[in-house]
Amino acid sequence: MRMYDVIMNKRRGLALTEEEIRWTIGGYMREQIPDYQMAALLMAICIQGMNDSEVAVLVDAMARSGELIDLSEIPGIKVDKHSTGGVGDKTSLILAPIVAACGVHVAKMSGRGLGHTGGTVDKLESIPGFRTAMEKEEFFRIVKETGLAIIGQTGNIAPADKKLYALRDVTATVDSIPLIAGSIMSKKIAAGADAIVLDVKTGRGAFMQSLEDAAKLAGTMVSIGHKVGRQVVALITDMNVPLGHNIGNSLEVAEAVETLQGRGPADLELVCLELAANMLLLAGLGEGDPEACRQAARETIKDGRAFAKFKAMTRAQGGDVRYLEDPGLFPAAPVIYPVQAPADGYISGMDALAIGKISVDLGAGRLKKGEPVDYRAGLVLQKKIGEKVNKGQIIAQLHTASAAAALDSAGRFLQAVTFSQEKPAPKPLIHARVTSKGVTYFH
Amino acid sequence: MRMYDVIMNKRRGLALTEEEIRWTIGGYMREQIPDYQMAALLMAICIQGMNDSEVAVLVDAMARSGELIDLSEIPGIKVDKHSTGGVGDKTSLILAPIVAACGVHVAKMSGRGLGHTGGTVDKLESIPGFRTAMEKEEFFRIVKETGLAIIGQTGNIAPADKKLYALRDVTATVDSIPLIAGSIMSKKIAAGADAIVLDVKTGRGAFMQSLEDAAKLAGTMVSIGHKVGRQVVALITDMNVPLGHNIGNSLEVAEAVETLQGRGPADLELVCLELAANMLLLAGLGEGDPEACRQAARETIKDGRAFAKFKAMTRAQGGDVRYLEDPGLFPAAPVIYPVQAPADGYISGMDALAIGKISVDLGAGRLKKGEPVDYRAGLVLQKKIGEKVNKGQIIAQLHTASAAAALDSAGRFLQAVTFSQEKPAPKPLIHARVTSKGVTYFH
Repeated sequence: MRMYDVIMNKRRGLALTEEEIRWTIGGYMREQIPDYQMAALLMAICIQGMNDSEVAVLVDAMARSGELIDLSEIPGIKVDKHSTGGVGDKTSLILAPIVAACGVHVAKMSGRGLGHTGGTVDKLESIPGFRTAMEKEEFFRIVKETGLAIIGQTGNIAPADKKLYALRDVTATVDSIPLIAGSIMSKKIAAGADAIVLDVKTGRGAFMQSLEDAAKLAGTMVSIGHKVGRQVVALITDMNVPLGHNIGNSLEVAEAVETLQGRGPADLELVCLELAANMLLLAGLGEGDPEACRQAARETIKDGRAFAKFKAMTRAQGGDVRYLEDPGLFPAAPVIYPVQAPADGYISGMDALAIGKISVDLGAGRLKKGEPVDYRAGLVLQKKIGEKVNKGQIIAQLHTASAAAALDSAGRFLQAVTFSQEKPAPKPLIHARVTSKGVTYFH
Repeated sequence: MRMYDVIMNKRRGLALTEEEIRWTIGGYMREQIPDYQMAALLMAICIQGMNDSEVAVLVDAMARSGELIDLSEIPGIKVDKHSTGGVGDKTSLILAPIVAACGVHVAKMSGRGLGHTGGTVDKLESIPGFRTAMEKEEFFRIVKETGLAIIGQTGNIAPADKKLYALRDVTATVDSIPLIAGSIMSKKIAAGADAIVLDVKTGRGAFMQSLEDAAKLAGTMVSIGHKVGRQVVALITDMNVPLGHNIGNSLEVAEAVETLQGRGPADLELVCLELAANMLLLAGLGEGDPEACRQAARETIKDGRAFAKFKAMTRAQGGDVRYLEDPGLFPAAPVIYPVQAPADGYISGMDALAIGKISVDLGAGRLKKGEPVDYRAGLVLQKKIGEKVNKGQIIAQLHTASAAAALDSAGRFLQAVTFSQEKPAPKPLIHARVTSKGVTYFH
């Protein structure tokens, strides 16, 4: 086989064979295929596409480039969840304890924040003492003992994805549905769960800005899951505005605690309950009745079991649970700068992408892998879309270590918010559900 | 400017700006843009295309990456010719002397053979003593004194094309009309001629197998020439069957000599005269009358002036003219193997691509740059398309140093030839003429 022919076949729009795909990933990992040939192939894939069968082989080849985690020693159906990334998206911190409280084991590997989107690992690490790096044996032990654990992705999970992603990042080949699906699913498959619930975000602050693209990505991933023998369901949820009120690492932990205590914002609670219910469904609970699963999830908040699970996991992973019992203990940012409404009216829009970028500038995120983040930094949205505000009223607080960043960000924040005289109609939060049987739109 | 954005723009099918193209070529030559980014851009260009204005800027940027030859010290309009490459294509050896004999100076840079196509420089070097590498001063002096010189392309002509071609060669991005046009025209523009006649081959043995693609390539190159202020005319000529009877380096020199002496094959003479007439037209001869230019070209063969020019050039470039006066002096290949007709009939086809590949295997060509060639090796087609043959009659002689190659090639040669019981209708040799005013098809 020659890489030249593989590239030419994709350039001409042909489907690559299983052998071609496996040979290419293998050769690339053994450094027998140079970056420039892989870059040409990636660009051809971006423009000519890949069918679901090709992507399924790609996923399998990438997953097998490293360690395949075997979760069989953990009892029951293991359900994982993945979000395509958003702003203020702290759902993993909430739904993992809910699902575990219902008796389903969660052994989850999460990522760090990059660009305008945050990452679960950074958020957890803002809890003093919390360890997200550990040996597999300890990870498994914690899952078995407490019902859940969330750690960072180890270096040997789908290393082909890591190598390919670094190349895509510099060759304008990131935003391709087959390549995004391949990247996400290879890591999820390698991480060993039996079933996976995907939260595919759509809107201004999401990678998939249009509902159509989000549905395509979700459909591809569900189809791949089916082909490689995993149960996969995707929800397409809204990311035009940030989820919840808090953006930033310890700020989001505090909001997760409020939500687990039944005092969280309605949008965040709704998305968490819906994702959790789907995870429970896949785990075989509720006898296939989604409403029963929703009810079971809600119960764990009401009776405190979900919050207890979060504390148990935190304790098991070395974190100081006093910060969860009293989030006021989290160190505050040196500068907390209020942004005031410029006039009377209703908030009609809050650009999640712009606000995500502001949170990075305030210190809560990073533009390049490996950069440190300031756990204290971020934003608290005191008013959200649909709410009435009066001129001079505080609509957000900017948390940062830099007065200059606060001043600069305040102006940009106001540009990211739109106001109207009429109360805007509420917008749907969950757009669609995608299973191997097809897409169900909710509006 | 960021290479990422340039790649993304082309990936999305946008036209690149002049600034983007110049910045990219400059950065690539300074090694600030790595191969993998250029490979992604090349693939995007292959699939999304480039308009003529983009290619004209690309040509200018590639030409300016090295030396721009200034031919102004040579009197009159300097006319160059380029062929997209074929099998048995020795036209340069014939038309350059014809044109020079008409008083138009020819200062030509040619290439070496690669793959199934031969190269003028290899052919000339088969004449003992012939030097194709020399300083510019000597090149100019020979052109001024004898009216013509043909040398190899110096290292500093369009180095960006060399670097890009090497990358295209391994990333399946060679056969793209904008990139081919850019490659050819950048070298021709840098070589300094005022006017250029292009011989765009079409058919089995050509890079452009369809007439449609050949017309597209020709149109692009003519348009680019116009945009950068050079007169360019293209002929689209047939390369389904080899041109003339001889394929191989000294064998082709011998056939060029025959043609310059008025004893050449009709197809070869016709193509040479038509290309030469177009060169003379561009040089302002014949007062715009093509037939007058054809007549002038024909005269130089009849009265021996063209052959005298070929000898003068050979002498000036150090070659031993006794080999031209008596091509029987050329060393013969150790093995001369006859191929016999398998049955009675007419020759109805001779696959130029297959025969070009056979000539490589016999030793006449090379698969990789830098490999040596055997000047003695090649084929002599004793019968050509349309001719009647009887079973057992010799239709070709294979010239090689290897008896094994001869045996293997004989079988493959017969597979490349088709026979019919009816005399096949003659096929046109010159399909179309392309000028900045449009395409004229001749059938």
